[in-house]
Amino acid sequence: MADALTQLKERLAKVTDVERVSRVLNWDQQTMMPPAGWRHRGEHLATLRRITHELLIDKETGRLLDELRALEDSLDPDSDDAALIRVARRDYEKAVRVPTELRAEMTRAAAEARTIWVKARAESDFELFRPALERNYELRRQYVDCFDDVDEPYDILLDDFEPETSTAEVTETFAELKPELIRLIAELRNEEVDDSFLRGTFAPEAQERLAKEVVTLFGFRPDTWRLDPTEHPFASGAGVDDIRITTHYDPATMKSFFSTMHEYGHGLYSHQLPRHLESLPTGGPCSLGIHESQSRLWENLVGRGRPFWQFFYPRAQETYPDQLRKVELDDFIAGINRVRPSLIRIKADEVTYGMHVILRFELEQDLVNGRVVVSDLPHVWNEKMHEYLSVDVPNDAEGVLQDTHWASGHIGYFSTYLLGTVMSVQIWEKVLDDVPDLEEQIERGEFGALRDWLGEHVHRLGRKFSPQETLRRATGATIDPKPYLAYLRAKYGAGVAA
Amino acid sequence: MADALTQLKERLAKVTDVERVSRVLNWDQQTMMPPAGWRHRGEHLATLRRITHELLIDKETGRLLDELRALEDSLDPDSDDAALIRVARRDYEKAVRVPTELRAEMTRAAAEARTIWVKARAESDFELFRPALERNYELRRQYVDCFDDVDEPYDILLDDFEPETSTAEVTETFAELKPELIRLIAELRNEEVDDSFLRGTFAPEAQERLAKEVVTLFGFRPDTWRLDPTEHPFASGAGVDDIRITTHYDPATMKSFFSTMHEYGHGLYSHQLPRHLESLPTGGPCSLGIHESQSRLWENLVGRGRPFWQFFYPRAQETYPDQLRKVELDDFIAGINRVRPSLIRIKADEVTYGMHVILRFELEQDLVNGRVVVSDLPHVWNEKMHEYLSVDVPNDAEGVLQDTHWASGHIGYFSTYLLGTVMSVQIWEKVLDDVPDLEEQIERGEFGALRDWLGEHVHRLGRKFSPQETLRRATGATIDPKPYLAYLRAKYGAGVAA
Repeated sequence: MADALTQLKERLAKVTDVERVSRVLNWDQQTMMPPAGWRHRGEHLATLRRITHELLIDKETGRLLDELRALEDSLDPDSDDAALIRVARRDYEKAVRVPTELRAEMTRAAAEARTIWVKARAESDFELFRPALERNYELRRQYVDCFDDVDEPYDILLDDFEPETSTAEVTETFAELKPELIRLIAELRNEEVDDSFLRGTFAPEAQERLAKEVVTLFGFRPDTWRLDPTEHPFASGAGVDDIRITTHYDPATMKSFFSTMHEYGHGLYSHQLPRHLESLPTGGPCSLGIHESQSRLWENLVGRGRPFWQFFYPRAQETYPDQLRKVELDDFIAGINRVRPSLIRIKADEVTYGMHVILRFELEQDLVNGRVVVSDLPHVWNEKMHEYLSVDVPNDAEGVLQDTHWASGHIGYFSTYLLGTVMSVQIWEKVLDDVPDLEEQIERGEFGALRDWLGEHVHRLGRKFSPQETLRRATGATIDPKPYLAYLRAKYGAGVAA
Repeated sequence: MADALTQLKERLAKVTDVERVSRVLNWDQQTMMPPAGWRHRGEHLATLRRITHELLIDKETGRLLDELRALEDSLDPDSDDAALIRVARRDYEKAVRVPTELRAEMTRAAAEARTIWVKARAESDFELFRPALERNYELRRQYVDCFDDVDEPYDILLDDFEPETSTAEVTETFAELKPELIRLIAELRNEEVDDSFLRGTFAPEAQERLAKEVVTLFGFRPDTWRLDPTEHPFASGAGVDDIRITTHYDPATMKSFFSTMHEYGHGLYSHQLPRHLESLPTGGPCSLGIHESQSRLWENLVGRGRPFWQFFYPRAQETYPDQLRKVELDDFIAGINRVRPSLIRIKADEVTYGMHVILRFELEQDLVNGRVVVSDLPHVWNEKMHEYLSVDVPNDAEGVLQDTHWASGHIGYFSTYLLGTVMSVQIWEKVLDDVPDLEEQIERGEFGALRDWLGEHVHRLGRKFSPQETLRRATGATIDPKPYLAYLRAKYGAGVAA
């Protein structure tokens, strides 16, 4: 038995290492690679994908998993080894249905589409991007066709980002959120809040200084982390000791500060994943929803809250004296929390954000199920933006072309942003229960207890359990939109007289 | 037949892609990776090596090569396909003798040793580095032991860097050089040449500006190239459209300028490799000797010559007015060509450089053959430096710890530097034959004809032929130290009255 387990671990360690290498290549592509390098990069990423897929679907993997069934049944299901066999079986059973060449082509086409998208977005030219996007959707339909007896094709895609989570479950969660968010937006959208100080001239060097200061305060250490500027912020890295986050310094706004805190949350999750499992699939992140619960927690629950700014506002004032010297703390906090429908998801406030996600979640299903064709996408996008947020989209760069996800082949990903946001509040409330003086600590600029709590209750579980089981172990409950809605009502209470 | 060839190409394309990916990881490790990331990086590189080695030594590779023997015999030996089968057979026959775990461990140990070496060098602490170096040498001895009937163990190592080149052949070439170099050094070492203007304060920003200017002039294009600062200059990249060179800006000297030109030569070679073969082993560089012939050509034949400075000196004066305003062009050229024995190989002049290489070539053989043990290395190094260059080594950082090669597992590499230097002069003379107005072009800052000649006669051959066959096709002759010695005598004529 031990032999089969050791063999399985060796095989999966190879897969895990190559996946980590792909992450470094993706980071490099978005930060360092000379532009023309994309021509190699797509092939290289496809080759790595071909290798991991072949290792995973190899008959030997199946044989080892069969041999290990008795061991799995005899082990404590919470044990590392039981979890490993369980996760590996799940990965194997899904992968084995998919031809290697399709997997490789999905990767190659996405790397190419991402390059085309950068240009199309810069030129606000959807037609330029359309064939690449059609190709990505066509390949996802081929991917879905690899599975039998699929009631809801979108389930297959969603499961790649949020495992063991069905479209119906997400729809149910969103159905509870949608009317409440629409009502809140209607109530708050015309409230008078001055946030004009957030626009102006913010030197990128000053933004970078402040970004480094805040992540250092949170717990970024230069021997294990990097922070780089990119067009589109993201978090990546090669392992717990190699964490790479990026941010975008737009000189017209200081909002990079919030996206930096967001990416810090992702980075901390990766940094505190279980070290003893790091060469195995169970040592990776649980799901994108859980990942996002961490980034949203640092961005919103910490970063848009009073305790944090009580401590940090003087530093922001020193950094941007012209803009902030005369702005009182209360007005600053009101300004950074102002609710106002807008065009761009990543710049949206906490209330309108959910509608950006719901729009994408609905559109993805329509596209996958053929209810909408790619060529109609800009039109349908703009209509839905008008319906949900009453905003008019002036051009595709600020509309359907704004996100990299579909270009990068991440179709089925968006809903995890809102799932994570909902879970972030559930987790936050549990931290507050367990660390009663958390807010006082934050007022003193102390984040160690928060980091440790998240590490112990969320991060160290890695990918041993499903997202909902992970959330249940951390908080005692599975996903529930009520705490999030209550949080929004409490925060925006004045505007929600009702 | 076509089927077997297609299959072989697919297999080798995978190997080639993964090797390219390893190059990006190596570049990243030396430029971008957070320091603690080395803990992952060694494993990741070892895993990639394990994968390429297994693909290469697989029985199926052998079967395909057997099947293709008849095709190979029927093809024009100069054809791409014949060259591919020939090169693949050579790689296969060498690799198949080596266990995968040894290959992976050689990679892992080298990545670890490189990290330890950085610290040991910074602290000038050979003892800290010794165990890692002993491990690297021990693993190379195990590697050599994989081969039968080896007369000269060092042949096996040398062949990994300079294929189809024996220790005896290199020794013969060096035997012709060594007495002449020693005589030249003795004649020139006390010559009065003022190069004091090369030392002083040179702002790294100004150095970077000038470095970018010169490589742009030579033919660096930002859509396909990068230039970054590192502690130790090197050239790397992921393919013809992703070229990455690095340099080191020491504020006490302007010598980064020469190392930048050197790395440009490497980069141009990689940039002009045969595009239609880029996913195959024949599309890679021929050998490190040929590689070095390209870097030395740009650094020395172009970059220390009068025609180049006739054009470029005003730019250097504008960049460093305090240091160069009052220095005449003739004095500047004399200064950058001053011959003076010194401690550091990469800072050595054209005459003493060869002795640094010969010293290492001899020491490597002594270590591999057990005539010297690693713990005696600093002592033996210092003695030989005294014997060959009459310099006293004040500390190991400026002695045996100065180069990264042994740490990185590149044992058998050094001689290629001098082989390349010798070949660079042979190639240069052939360019002068074919492009009679080359020097006039350079005086006008025009480098297109030189780039094209090198591309057509050297670069586009890739790895189709052995280094000596490549040189023969480019110049009509195999390696010959006489042109190099004649070049040195002509250049330093005044000092070599004899």
